[in-house]
Amino acid sequence: MTRVMASGVFDILHTGHVHYLSEAKRLGDELVVVVATDNTVRKNKHEPITPEKMRLELVQNLKPVDRAILGHEGDMFGVVTEIKPDIIALGYDQLFDEKALENELVRRGMHITVVRLGRYEDDLNGTRKIIRKIIEWHTATACKEEKD
Amino acid sequence: MTRVMASGVFDILHTGHVHYLSEAKRLGDELVVVVATDNTVRKNKHEPITPEKMRLELVQNLKPVDRAILGHEGDMFGVVTEIKPDIIALGYDQLFDEKALENELVRRGMHITVVRLGRYEDDLNGTRKIIRKIIEWHTATACKEEKD
Repeated sequence: MTRVMASGVFDILHTGHVHYLSEAKRLGDELVVVVATDNTVRKNKHEPITPEKMRLELVQNLKPVDRAILGHEGDMFGVVTEIKPDIIALGYDQLFDEKALENELVRRGMHITVVRLGRYEDDLNGTRKIIRKIIEWHTATACKEEKD
Repeated sequence: MTRVMASGVFDILHTGHVHYLSEAKRLGDELVVVVATDNTVRKNKHEPITPEKMRLELVQNLKPVDRAILGHEGDMFGVVTEIKPDIIALGYDQLFDEKALENELVRRGMHITVVRLGRYEDDLNGTRKIIRKIIEWHTATACKEEKD
């Protein structure tokens, strides 16, 4: 049984997320997804739009996903030790270097293959695109209301 | 085999959508979901944020969903004739009156049970809440940029 681990924020789901998780699932038999906690998102990126409980529940309900859990805060190695994956699937925009990550895992006694997955057309800043669209449509009204 | 039909816009997925579809699935054996086309959304509500292709693909990838299709434009009876459900599951906020809808279906020769599903706490304007949050966080910046 090959266990694959994927991870992400998954704030406002879009088809890029589904493609990433479907591809990750195809690498093995079981897909475990680590959803970043609100605190981790705050530290690394920005305030999440939807809370971790909602992001976790949505990911758990996606067909390619066998199990989803909230990440640990701090580095990723704690959660890797817990999940014990055979493969870690990185999305096209995740910042780790595959080789460096594999080496660090070996240094910690874990022999895990790290696979970089490709980019899909509608991956391109999916969540940001959605947010930008919402803002564009509402900016005029919102600014007007602020002045009133 | 009991076939259940559910329907909606599903623009920016949230846990209220997943609860609605999970409840609908529990009413029978097979769940077919009708996703409103962009044109229908425009006619009835407002411009959709995410296009019908993306909304359809996300719904198709949710665990409770056996099949998802785009709706017909015009009234809902065309798509009901096509799907031939035993049960139509209405979300708590869908505007049809159950009895009136059942009677209209009978008048058209279709004997279908219409079931109204309950409301969950995080159903409460899920998508609107998310949109409001995005707008709140960005209004100040957006208005400032507009002035510059």
